[in-house]
Amino acid sequence: MILQTLYIIAIVSESITGTLAAGRHKMDLFGVLLIALVTAIGGGTIRDIVLNMHPMTWVKHPEYVLMLCFCSMLTTKIPYFFASLSRLFLMLDAIGLIAFSIIGVNKAIEHEFGFIVCVISGVITGISGGIARDILCNKIPLVFQKELYASVSIVACVLYYCLYFYTPLNADVSVILTLIFGFSFRMIAVKFKLSLPVFIYEDSKKDIDKDSKK
Amino acid sequence: MILQTLYIIAIVSESITGTLAAGRHKMDLFGVLLIALVTAIGGGTIRDIVLNMHPMTWVKHPEYVLMLCFCSMLTTKIPYFFASLSRLFLMLDAIGLIAFSIIGVNKAIEHEFGFIVCVISGVITGISGGIARDILCNKIPLVFQKELYASVSIVACVLYYCLYFYTPLNADVSVILTLIFGFSFRMIAVKFKLSLPVFIYEDSKKDIDKDSKK
Amino acid sequence: MILQTLYIIAIVSESITGTLAAGRHKMDLFGVLLIALVTAIGGGTIRDIVLNMHPMTWVKHPEYVLMLCFCSMLTTKIPYFFASLSRLFLMLDAIGLIAFSIIGVNKAIEHEFGFIVCVISGVITGISGGIARDILCNKIPLVFQKELYASVSIVACVLYYCLYFYTPLNADVSVILTLIFGFSFRMIAVKFKLSLPVFIYEDSKKDIDKDSKK
Repeated sequence: MILQTLYIIAIVSESITGTLAAGRHKMDLFGVLLIALVTAIGGGTIRDIVLNMHPMTWVKHPEYVLMLCFCSMLTTKIPYFFASLSRLFLMLDAIGLIAFSIIGVNKAIEHEFGFIVCVISGVITGISGGIARDILCNKIPLVFQKELYASVSIVACVLYYCLYFYTPLNADVSVILTLIFGFSFRMIAVKFKLSLPVFIYEDSKKDIDKDSKK
Repeated sequence: MILQTLYIIAIVSESITGTLAAGRHKMDLFGVLLIALVTAIGGGTIRDIVLNMHPMTWVKHPEYVLMLCFCSMLTTKIPYFFASLSRLFLMLDAIGLIAFSIIGVNKAIEHEFGFIVCVISGVITGISGGIARDILCNKIPLVFQKELYASVSIVACVLYYCLYFYTPLNADVSVILTLIFGFSFRMIAVKFKLSLPVFIYEDSKKDIDKDSKK
Repeated sequence: MILQTLYIIAIVSESITGTLAAGRHKMDLFGVLLIALVTAIGGGTIRDIVLNMHPMTWVKHPEYVLMLCFCSMLTTKIPYFFASLSRLFLMLDAIGLIAFSIIGVNKAIEHEFGFIVCVISGVITGISGGIARDILCNKIPLVFQKELYASVSIVACVLYYCLYFYTPLNADVSVILTLIFGFSFRMIAVKFKLSLPVFIYEDSKKDIDKDSKK
């Protein structure tokens, strides 16, 4: 029940941020709509394809797709209103990231996958919508360069899995604890601009140089 | 039967236009072949993966793959001949778009999906081959910026679904009506350069600026 | 047994080269990890999704994922050591390409697909990890421009399929023969810089020009 509510909040806020992202690339309304949908439900779609968990959520609940289209079109009418709420969206996005991660772990647990696959399932749900959005916009995915974004997802997945299996807490309490912890972690990372170290490798070898020029 | 014929026309003409597109990016013959195949049968492949409708068409009929490879190689031999037919290909491409859309709706109807999923199935079939081609060529997908391309697909899907379920017309008549309507719509859009409004959103906030520079 | 060993060698060396590739794009550690995983196991993942062969290898053996993460992190610590072994990795990469191709054909044979689908299965396994890596790094896939890379995979797939079905040789001997032949073919191509002809198509038509400028 909590998760269901968080899921709706998450996909709505992702569709709004996806719409704003598309607007920076001068796309037509259909392009905007597609980017919004991919950002919001692309992560779950990729997870369900990779782990073969059919039918996927939006196929069972196609009304969500309509709702997201409506939110996206509304955003194109009043983009500056939504942009002025960027602080709010930063928070909603953090909540969405954790909610997606927990939902991904949960769905993998239901299908009786082990620890590693459950964590991968959560992380795919959390971050691959954003990766697909950036590929469609022809950019290097932002998630590889943003403050502890994927890391927050990984930590939330591991924490939730452990609370679920190794404590007597009921599911709702586990969700809330994971949410509080993950949200604080993400907010602290944004506030202090924490990020993972960047791995830079430069090579002067001729054959590799030739590649990178292309 | 009509659909089957239209399908062959559609994949052949898409493989030829895909080959010409690849030729603009200086790829080797294998790259050209792959782009041609992705343009022609990528849309159906993505649809079947997302909606879990296996086995997909080219796995059941691998001879189509050979035929498309042959068309693509032929195109590399006489590209200027095919390019001189660009008016013809514009029309074949429009027929292909409608045929793909109808086939996608049909396949989803067979799997007993509802209205929204059927339309999504048709649109995925119609446009995602072109999106995959542009991602492989490292461009922002053209379909987001072209005259009413995706819109024609959506309208055709909705029209076909309604004719199929809410009129006593038989399937072939529904196909032909949808084809005539969709084809005229697309040709008018090209002729008068109709297109969807473009959503442009520019933001001077520092943190977002930083993103877009990357 | 031979194939199993070759598979481990292949994914480990692909994860190391994937890590070095990511390092040229200034990604954070998570991005590096993801690129390494995609390069190593992305090809098999895409094959299993397209041909609906679930569960995929890394879902059955999630310990491989941990092993690859470890290799990738190790590479970020001592990149110049691994880079100094570039000759070795060129060879390991060639072995990996052939091993992936054979594994792909084998898995399709087990699922009773015909000749064409088996070859496609092998080629997807061999090359699509590298394509996914290049898409994530926002480049035109290198495989379209590299010396006879995909061609070696195609030839190896055809050879292995023929040895398997049309000779009395046992499976291990077929693997070894294919490996020797494919490896020599690739090394000769690298040595003499053999490559497929490039198809270049330039068009001065106004409407097409407009597209390519975007």
